[in-house]
Amino acid sequence: MSDRYEKGIEVMREHLGPEADQYIESIREVAPLFAKVNVEFAFGDIYGNKSHVLDPKTQELVTLSALTVMGNALPQLKLHVACALNEGATKEEIVETITQMIAYCGFPSATNAIMEAKKVFKEKGLI
Amino acid sequence: MSDRYEKGIEVMREHLGPEADQYIESIREVAPLFAKVNVEFAFGDIYGNKSHVLDPKTQELVTLSALTVMGNALPQLKLHVACALNEGATKEEIVETITQMIAYCGFPSATNAIMEAKKVFKEKGLI
Amino acid sequence: MSDRYEKGIEVMREHLGPEADQYIESIREVAPLFAKVNVEFAFGDIYGNKSHVLDPKTQELVTLSALTVMGNALPQLKLHVACALNEGATKEEIVETITQMIAYCGFPSATNAIMEAKKVFKEKGLI
Amino acid sequence: MSDRYEKGIEVMREHLGPEADQYIESIREVAPLFAKVNVEFAFGDIYGNKSHVLDPKTQELVTLSALTVMGNALPQLKLHVACALNEGATKEEIVETITQMIAYCGFPSATNAIMEAKKVFKEKGLI
Amino acid sequence: MSDRYEKGIEVMREHLGPEADQYIESIREVAPLFAKVNVEFAFGDIYGNKSHVLDPKTQELVTLSALTVMGNALPQLKLHVACALNEGATKEEIVETITQMIAYCGFPSATNAIMEAKKVFKEKGLI
Amino acid sequence: MSDRYEKGIEVMREHLGPEADQYIESIREVAPLFAKVNVEFAFGDIYGNKSHVLDPKTQELVTLSALTVMGNALPQLKLHVACALNEGATKEEIVETITQMIAYCGFPSATNAIMEAKKVFKEKGLI
Repeated sequence: MSDRYEKGIEVMREHLGPEADQYIESIREVAPLFAKVNVEFAFGDIYGNKSHVLDPKTQELVTLSALTVMGNALPQLKLHVACALNEGATKEEIVETITQMIAYCGFPSATNAIMEAKKVFKEKGLI
Repeated sequence: MSDRYEKGIEVMREHLGPEADQYIESIREVAPLFAKVNVEFAFGDIYGNKSHVLDPKTQELVTLSALTVMGNALPQLKLHVACALNEGATKEEIVETITQMIAYCGFPSATNAIMEAKKVFKEKGLI
Repeated sequence: MSDRYEKGIEVMREHLGPEADQYIESIREVAPLFAKVNVEFAFGDIYGNKSHVLDPKTQELVTLSALTVMGNALPQLKLHVACALNEGATKEEIVETITQMIAYCGFPSATNAIMEAKKVFKEKGLI
Repeated sequence: MSDRYEKGIEVMREHLGPEADQYIESIREVAPLFAKVNVEFAFGDIYGNKSHVLDPKTQELVTLSALTVMGNALPQLKLHVACALNEGATKEEIVETITQMIAYCGFPSATNAIMEAKKVFKEKGLI
Repeated sequence: MSDRYEKGIEVMREHLGPEADQYIESIREVAPLFAKVNVEFAFGDIYGNKSHVLDPKTQELVTLSALTVMGNALPQLKLHVACALNEGATKEEIVETITQMIAYCGFPSATNAIMEAKKVFKEKGLI
Repeated sequence: MSDRYEKGIEVMREHLGPEADQYIESIREVAPLFAKVNVEFAFGDIYGNKSHVLDPKTQELVTLSALTVMGNALPQLKLHVACALNEGATKEEIVETITQMIAYCGFPSATNAIMEAKKVFKEKGLI
């Protein structure tokens, strides 16, 4: 394992919690390079860049708004709602982020996102 | 003008600066209802909701990431880069928000966004 | 409840039928502002605008084509196929609207839409 | 020229006016099959299907809402605003169709569409 | 059945295998014109065009990358992973095509695609 | 400069030609991390992965179909039409790839792509 991989998987575990390793393993079984760059690039280079000026909570909120408007990334949105909670965002901040997106992506994508977030809140006993 | 309109246009001016009125006027000339809900709903109900838990700077950063991944909203992205600066975001925070989006929308949309942000930074003498 | 809310929920019930209240309630449990603007803005201001020049059936057909090409709004498309039938559109008009969209969004999104419409037609005994 | 081509180009001229031939010619210079299916399939099979239940004006309105929410089809949207006027749609019906789309695609795509429509209305002396 | 239809369904069977007829039949039950142009246009005119310069394997690989970045076409992506294998593409070529798309559509869409491809590989005993 | 960067910029120059360095420099001026990962990840890890099973020409064709259906990446599409020619693709193969995409993204995105390709062909004296 390279240093970049070690750093990336560490950052990934901080954001996702213990599910990180299983998530990457399920990709590696079919696509080793995909799994490698998911760790090294997305979490090592991007989320873990040393000079970062955004705190982890804000990193997660800007990801949540992006996943909301994309509209076709509900599994990832669900994952990052949990990440945002892990990084200290409140339920209200997450809900407000998604609600704000109505103005940018309309109701269908925003509704699908809020319903996915609701599932996470329920699983965690927050509603 | 309704109270909702007055409140909305005030919030809009805070985020966009003096361009707000001209922006809305150019829409009203062709589509009065469109202009009305742009002010009352987007800025009155959403950005200006009284119980909001996100500060205006974070509101702008989550909008910037969303506009980046949408990929077809460059005029709005340019506007909101200026809004983000108005609300206290630094150039570095804006650049990092857009850079993070590479992981969610790939290089083409993120590149078009960073180039649009660069124009705003140049206009404001920040680079 | 404000006047705008009362008007909005009434228009919503006309389009969606009795499911309207349950739909909004499931959103309100997690996101009260979201639910409020869904009723007041989408149905009160937009579908229910007093000076409207499109009849309710045409309102639904233009929504169906939009939801078809968006490609990531199948739950909403299913809902609006029922709305379109409620407002007097025939099965043939709905099918032709979706079929025309092949030219604008290609086969994958149009196929997913036609299959979703088929489910509604079956539930209502139309095929 | 096949019968399908002749029928298609005729329907295309009805919707687009005299620009139809030049439009197709500019595609044919680089991509003959593309130009052929644009005429035969999009206009012959789809817009010109004999058993059609939607009138040409409604065909154009459902296309306009679709092009609005797609967000990356402004040249085609401009073309179809002119088509819609050719087929008897009023400026108000076109504006209302685009305005309704705010609820489905948010403000950025809807704003870009309304501004493109405004250009056509100005060119035709309608505002 | 027209000659175009016969040619189209033949090309479709070559790419999809025996599922082709059932696929089209399920569309025809609700939308006859849709089914007709799916065969005649997509497979007759496009995949089966006589002067084609791309071999069927490359036709399938360029379709797979497109379906990956679209992000809302997972049923079609699954179908075309099978098509690609039918036309001689290896598992490694399919995986590399999808992996390359990370750079163009980001991780969410590419991850959903690789997981869908994994299902096909498992069904066919390739992993 | 790291080894990964050196390898990446070399692969990038092979695909894009001498424009590669200027392209990256214009990004680095505003976003150094963005520029770095564009070279190291997109070209070093992905296009330049040592065990690659797709030849460079096929790499470019699958990118072209993806950029076509994305619909909001015309500057990148123009760049990759030139890359595809650099890697040995013919004008006819590029045109056929884009034409095939009509079936997946409809006419608007495919038309915008073919027109952008036409510009490149003209600049290079191919039509």
